[in-house]
Amino acid sequence: MPPYSCCWISDLSQSLNDRLSAYAAVAADLGVDAVALVPGPNFTRAVIHPFMSHERPFMLVIPAKGDPAALVPNLELRSWDLVGFEGKVFDWRDQDGHDAAFSELMAHLQIGSLGVEGQVMRVFVHHALQKARPNLRIVDAENEISGLRMIKTPEDIAALQEAIDISERALARVLDGVRLGQTEKEIEQSLIQALFAEGAEDQAFHPIVAAGDGSARPHAKARADYAVKSGDALLLDLGARKHGFAADITRTVFLDHATDEAQAVYDTVLRANQKGFEVARAGVTAHQIDDAVIGVLEASPYSDRIRTKTGHGLGRDVHEAPYIMRGNHMVLPAGTVFTNEPGLYQIDNFGVRIEDDVLITDGGCTSLTHFPKELTVLSC
Amino acid sequence: MPPYSCCWISDLSQSLNDRLSAYAAVAADLGVDAVALVPGPNFTRAVIHPFMSHERPFMLVIPAKGDPAALVPNLELRSWDLVGFEGKVFDWRDQDGHDAAFSELMAHLQIGSLGVEGQVMRVFVHHALQKARPNLRIVDAENEISGLRMIKTPEDIAALQEAIDISERALARVLDGVRLGQTEKEIEQSLIQALFAEGAEDQAFHPIVAAGDGSARPHAKARADYAVKSGDALLLDLGARKHGFAADITRTVFLDHATDEAQAVYDTVLRANQKGFEVARAGVTAHQIDDAVIGVLEASPYSDRIRTKTGHGLGRDVHEAPYIMRGNHMVLPAGTVFTNEPGLYQIDNFGVRIEDDVLITDGGCTSLTHFPKELTVLSC
Repeated sequence: MPPYSCCWISDLSQSLNDRLSAYAAVAADLGVDAVALVPGPNFTRAVIHPFMSHERPFMLVIPAKGDPAALVPNLELRSWDLVGFEGKVFDWRDQDGHDAAFSELMAHLQIGSLGVEGQVMRVFVHHALQKARPNLRIVDAENEISGLRMIKTPEDIAALQEAIDISERALARVLDGVRLGQTEKEIEQSLIQALFAEGAEDQAFHPIVAAGDGSARPHAKARADYAVKSGDALLLDLGARKHGFAADITRTVFLDHATDEAQAVYDTVLRANQKGFEVARAGVTAHQIDDAVIGVLEASPYSDRIRTKTGHGLGRDVHEAPYIMRGNHMVLPAGTVFTNEPGLYQIDNFGVRIEDDVLITDGGCTSLTHFPKELTVLSC
Repeated sequence: MPPYSCCWISDLSQSLNDRLSAYAAVAADLGVDAVALVPGPNFTRAVIHPFMSHERPFMLVIPAKGDPAALVPNLELRSWDLVGFEGKVFDWRDQDGHDAAFSELMAHLQIGSLGVEGQVMRVFVHHALQKARPNLRIVDAENEISGLRMIKTPEDIAALQEAIDISERALARVLDGVRLGQTEKEIEQSLIQALFAEGAEDQAFHPIVAAGDGSARPHAKARADYAVKSGDALLLDLGARKHGFAADITRTVFLDHATDEAQAVYDTVLRANQKGFEVARAGVTAHQIDDAVIGVLEASPYSDRIRTKTGHGLGRDVHEAPYIMRGNHMVLPAGTVFTNEPGLYQIDNFGVRIEDDVLITDGGCTSLTHFPKELTVLSC
């Protein structure tokens, strides 16, 4: 029944009130009266228990000053009890609709402005808020709210490492079994099964398995009618979820043999990936990393095959801040984890991506991914 | 990398233009200048190919009159080519941001009002639209847009049946293996693996495995520290995804023995479920079905254990229209598929839910679920 993928998480080092205070500080810093969290990675981080949403609005409002309040679907009340929330709760039943609960919540809070997670909150909740309080100023505070997750705690990093280790074991298992004539879809299915067999709580995302010309599409979908053949590039982009954290790794291998062009393209992408490790350290900007990584690709004969930026932050969400791209002048602190995933893609030909998960430290950076990345030709 | 779970779909009986025309008609009926689709079940249905979104806005706009247009992340252009879309495309790169693409799209379309999927579109897209065209009237057209999916085609029903059959085989496999002393989490993991082993393309949702007092929470999360014991109720709520369609079934069994109370509660829920099959037929309202089903529970000694409505529509989305609840006076046509899932839940004691997937026909209804539902006591 519940479509929101959810896992218990491990960081119990702070109390609920400590965690909520940090969101109150975000509201104060932003100059809004409160911030709202809806089910998703920030909500899970805040209340420790995962909740789903879907057609039922579910919201936690943390004012800059004063006590938090929550709007909770009636059928979740018994699960909500586990959170230990001390603020006022406004519940509603499906049969009655949620309008009255929104009105009561807004009347209780008496706020004029609200920071929300623009990437998570859906329009029907936005409209319900506006209906309940027509003059409410709704501000997209995605960056500020999710920003609290950017610097990873030791517990976060341990969870990420576990998710990555599971993913690497699954990848090794699948590459061992690849045979010419299998379809992309068959390889995808074996990859998903291997993730769970290796201990994933869930998939962090639906994996990408793309061979031959399919690998030229950065977000290709596995084809049931494409059988892998000798000489194909085979790109696998996968991630386990563990303790609420998402891995995200990519390797590209070649089947039976790699052409000179394939070797040269692979070498270029690998040098760009290595450049990322050379430049990443606390104090550099996202722009600087992307500029260095993409610069390697641009200086190659394959600059017309660049389709993507260097990468993105990684944590409870597969894509989160910081986005590693030119123009993003955010200074990266120690504890940031991002994907270093340069790629080159030529339509009707092939694509190569190499993706590692990188932890920024004071003196430099550490790869949380350890899967080999020298050019690999599978005999199959 | 992509967090939107996606699958190829099978219905190719209409052309892209035919399918888009239906959305144009929705706009005309609603009196808005256009409707917008963002990645999700309606978008997948419209363009046949699945796309994901996440931090990148991606939108298809279908005017009531005139040609559709699309806003597409640059790195998806090569995948978008596969759609065969003939309208104008406004793309943007991460490095440049999407504001210019929104402005150009809005300048091109010259619309004053736009119907959107309130349950799918997120606030950051809403804000980008408002920024590009401050006077744009944004209307929540979720019901009307998703309403096009309510009557299932024969291809839809075949896909649903396949997803349900996979789910039932997985459930049978897992129930065979349940042993006292296993944790809820262990059973959950074996259930997920069984779904894929039986042919699921994906999970329709993270399954619920709840035993003993956990079963009293309708949306319980599997516990790693709860070992199932003799006398426990064991509730399993699961669904495979196949060809883009989601199954959703629940069975509750008892381990080693069932108390008199458990038997009486189970019998009550089963009678409510059976009542659903008696009353469902084309022409009844959602209200009438819920009233009959919940009426059975209300007439029992366990009326204080009612926490949920009868169920929800089922198709590309696990929860979709029609919602089977009192107050929803929508008349249900033949071809509607809904979950018939009455339950009784007593906190600190146990819960029972029996959930079937039901197809409404002219003369009555058909269960797409065939898993036995007489009271089952597992010897384990």
